[in-house]
Amino acid sequence: MTEAGRGTTRGLFSRRAFTTAATAAAFVPLVGAGQANAAPSDKVTGKPDKGDVRRMTLYAEKLPNNLLGYGLEPGKATIPGPLIEMVEGETLEIELVNNTDITVSLHVHGVDYEITSDGTRMSNSVVEPGGRRTYVWRTHAPGRRPGGTIEPGSAGYWHYHDHVVGTDHGTGGISRGLYGALVVRRKGDILPDKQFVVFFNDMTVNNAKAGEAPHFMAKIGERVEFIVVTHGNFFHTWHLHGHRWADNRTGLLDNPQDPSRIIDTKITGPAESFGFQVIAGERVGPGAWMYHCHVQSHSDMGMAGVFMVADENGNVPGHDMGGMSMGTGSGMSTMPH
Amino acid sequence: MTEAGRGTTRGLFSRRAFTTAATAAAFVPLVGAGQANAAPSDKVTGKPDKGDVRRMTLYAEKLPNNLLGYGLEPGKATIPGPLIEMVEGETLEIELVNNTDITVSLHVHGVDYEITSDGTRMSNSVVEPGGRRTYVWRTHAPGRRPGGTIEPGSAGYWHYHDHVVGTDHGTGGISRGLYGALVVRRKGDILPDKQFVVFFNDMTVNNAKAGEAPHFMAKIGERVEFIVVTHGNFFHTWHLHGHRWADNRTGLLDNPQDPSRIIDTKITGPAESFGFQVIAGERVGPGAWMYHCHVQSHSDMGMAGVFMVADENGNVPGHDMGGMSMGTGSGMSTMPH
Amino acid sequence: MTEAGRGTTRGLFSRRAFTTAATAAAFVPLVGAGQANAAPSDKVTGKPDKGDVRRMTLYAEKLPNNLLGYGLEPGKATIPGPLIEMVEGETLEIELVNNTDITVSLHVHGVDYEITSDGTRMSNSVVEPGGRRTYVWRTHAPGRRPGGTIEPGSAGYWHYHDHVVGTDHGTGGISRGLYGALVVRRKGDILPDKQFVVFFNDMTVNNAKAGEAPHFMAKIGERVEFIVVTHGNFFHTWHLHGHRWADNRTGLLDNPQDPSRIIDTKITGPAESFGFQVIAGERVGPGAWMYHCHVQSHSDMGMAGVFMVADENGNVPGHDMGGMSMGTGSGMSTMPH
Repeated sequence: MTEAGRGTTRGLFSRRAFTTAATAAAFVPLVGAGQANAAPSDKVTGKPDKGDVRRMTLYAEKLPNNLLGYGLEPGKATIPGPLIEMVEGETLEIELVNNTDITVSLHVHGVDYEITSDGTRMSNSVVEPGGRRTYVWRTHAPGRRPGGTIEPGSAGYWHYHDHVVGTDHGTGGISRGLYGALVVRRKGDILPDKQFVVFFNDMTVNNAKAGEAPHFMAKIGERVEFIVVTHGNFFHTWHLHGHRWADNRTGLLDNPQDPSRIIDTKITGPAESFGFQVIAGERVGPGAWMYHCHVQSHSDMGMAGVFMVADENGNVPGHDMGGMSMGTGSGMSTMPH
Repeated sequence: MTEAGRGTTRGLFSRRAFTTAATAAAFVPLVGAGQANAAPSDKVTGKPDKGDVRRMTLYAEKLPNNLLGYGLEPGKATIPGPLIEMVEGETLEIELVNNTDITVSLHVHGVDYEITSDGTRMSNSVVEPGGRRTYVWRTHAPGRRPGGTIEPGSAGYWHYHDHVVGTDHGTGGISRGLYGALVVRRKGDILPDKQFVVFFNDMTVNNAKAGEAPHFMAKIGERVEFIVVTHGNFFHTWHLHGHRWADNRTGLLDNPQDPSRIIDTKITGPAESFGFQVIAGERVGPGAWMYHCHVQSHSDMGMAGVFMVADENGNVPGHDMGGMSMGTGSGMSTMPH
Repeated sequence: MTEAGRGTTRGLFSRRAFTTAATAAAFVPLVGAGQANAAPSDKVTGKPDKGDVRRMTLYAEKLPNNLLGYGLEPGKATIPGPLIEMVEGETLEIELVNNTDITVSLHVHGVDYEITSDGTRMSNSVVEPGGRRTYVWRTHAPGRRPGGTIEPGSAGYWHYHDHVVGTDHGTGGISRGLYGALVVRRKGDILPDKQFVVFFNDMTVNNAKAGEAPHFMAKIGERVEFIVVTHGNFFHTWHLHGHRWADNRTGLLDNPQDPSRIIDTKITGPAESFGFQVIAGERVGPGAWMYHCHVQSHSDMGMAGVFMVADENGNVPGHDMGGMSMGTGSGMSTMPH
């Protein structure tokens, strides 16, 4: 298992920083370590080419074990699909190519799109087998309406998914892996050093088999962003050991009077999404910090992984794996440099 | 199906504006289109008659299919019951007339009432068949307590329901339709042009049969208020296509520093309630925008309807209904003017 | 049933005030009234002895009916375990003595601890039968990181529990009663007059049998703090009759612009925790105010108790218990003085 890190410099927002985002799909057993450790890709994160419009192509693909996935190249679909990032004000034109033998679509949460990009059968915005269709996602900064009220901006931790496979609500597509995360930043938002994406999809983490939930690796002091999305039929309670965050838009407090609750556990249901940043090991040190659904029967069934925080020498204390079957327990005591 | 709109001018609060509120029960199949498109009623929304005290009569009635409902007149009960609005500072005296053959009651969330208005069997604040009883609801503006702490005001998206039919928790009354929404405004709150009320009651929307969930209609640019309440035994995740809101008291940001999360999906459980306002079609245009519970099995079972946003000519693009059984698919492509 | 009150003077924070905290375990049927009405204990709430370090001993014990509990003295375990309070900046060293015949541990939410205090089998931070181990919990005030971002403080309504009995997630330990509440205060936080702890643990309240959920007693005007934690496998919706709170860190508004939603019902899932303060009977008067899970089948199964608010003479109106089986209905009409 390799590192799915970002080479970005921690700090305030700059457009350049977005050119090197990688997806946390690197940790999904379904994809090979090499291909998942995605190189920086202009397709996802490149600079706007015209005005603030970017273009990318997304491929819907079949995967082994009756799974489906979105990918940036043919034959390279992952679960979850690519982590897509936008900055408020940008427009993204996504051409979805359907390489499967069933009708699929692309439905997105949080951003602005016309009904022709809804991804529903009702609006006929779906893609037949072998076909392609362009979905247009727009974003905007917060502003004031003519009447004086405030229009919220598009920034947030969002996600996209199929809305047509199996049922008119995409139940089959979601169940089989057609989903991914979308982060929309506001200018000034703090960028993470690393990003990890977790989908609680029914009783799986990122559709991985029980006991094979991804492990995430960071060095102490790195700013790590978790993006958590739920799908399926159940509620879950996301819990991370040893770290906390603010239950608001960014997961961060931006002023000392912010009344947001600080939490380390959050109930979440299908299609909800949230994200937050933590400083790996802050005030708690390096360690093998579990993350898991805290619904007892869910964690017992395998909805648990480890957030591996290495010390300066690459060592991660606290994971004598003998007592716990973590699935991919080998090679986790040191981090790649 | 007709429009359940409000004739109010969008703008800041004025007491006059409250005289024309209509209830979204208009869209409930259980009531005839005509009677549900309620004319302005002093009973619900009239000016205070003495001090800030208003009076109204509510009738508990039997409905077909073993259902029950509250109504403003005998024989005119709806599910949900009348949308009741108050302004912080007002008192509402509600005489509940029990026209059913079982004991019923009225329990309210959010506002101030003495134990004699609790609506529980334990407090003997129930109404026998053929009887009547006055419940008193009081509200107050926020203020500062003598000790300096802040007392929150009553403003919020609340609701009322039976607490005695079937069990001491009103499980039977709630299941059969004895519930309604209550909105308490703060002076200065922005009034909507239209209001829609959605109760996720077990696997139904407003107790409608599967596939007959209400559709809501608005013109592009109208300020639409959704009031969402959950009842029964399950959690749900309310989702609206193409529109978002702030996860706070009003659903609106009132200053740019407000750290509230902007969402388009929200987990909610029995007796929780929230509300928000959106500008119909803002940045996304007209369209047949689905709303649904995003728990996949729930939406597949019919917990889905459509928010129809018409363009200036009354046309609603994006609902080729052939592919989706929406129950009441006829006559929805144009809006009444 | 006796009062589990606090003798503290209501008002702004002072360290002295923390010396008299009592636990709400007093209302748990599993413990005798006498012993549960805990006298002020330096072990839990004493002043820091060295720097800001306090020490206490916690005993894991067997209880009748196959239950387990934490206690401050051998043979005196309760469910929930002792309510532990800290002030931001303090460190607490807890020696856990395992008086059971199975391996147990101590896992805490919200505060700072090294991986050696994680309480998980993976980190080998567990206690064998007959053994003892010291867990170290640290807390900190909010501050600003060198890079300028804000580090949240530790203040919050947290909790602790076993993480090893039954499964590697402590499912058996939690199910059988190995849990308790932790409150971390910020300097300036307002102290309550009384505190009540409610764990929704699967279909029980504090592991009490159906119909024996604790009743809580206060006098009108007292500042009462509720601490609510969920455990097990289900979501619940906590509801309190006649009282409301802000859905933020403290449950209180600290300025009039605070956009926090005011609620009287809150969905919550396993390992989530929150707390809030209310003024008993404020604007609603004395009464037998129900609290319950608002999931209808849960309340019908007994997840309901009463918040008894007495008037100046000790009388509590509104609980003709004839119509409702509240389990411990005797002697509740007057409060001890």
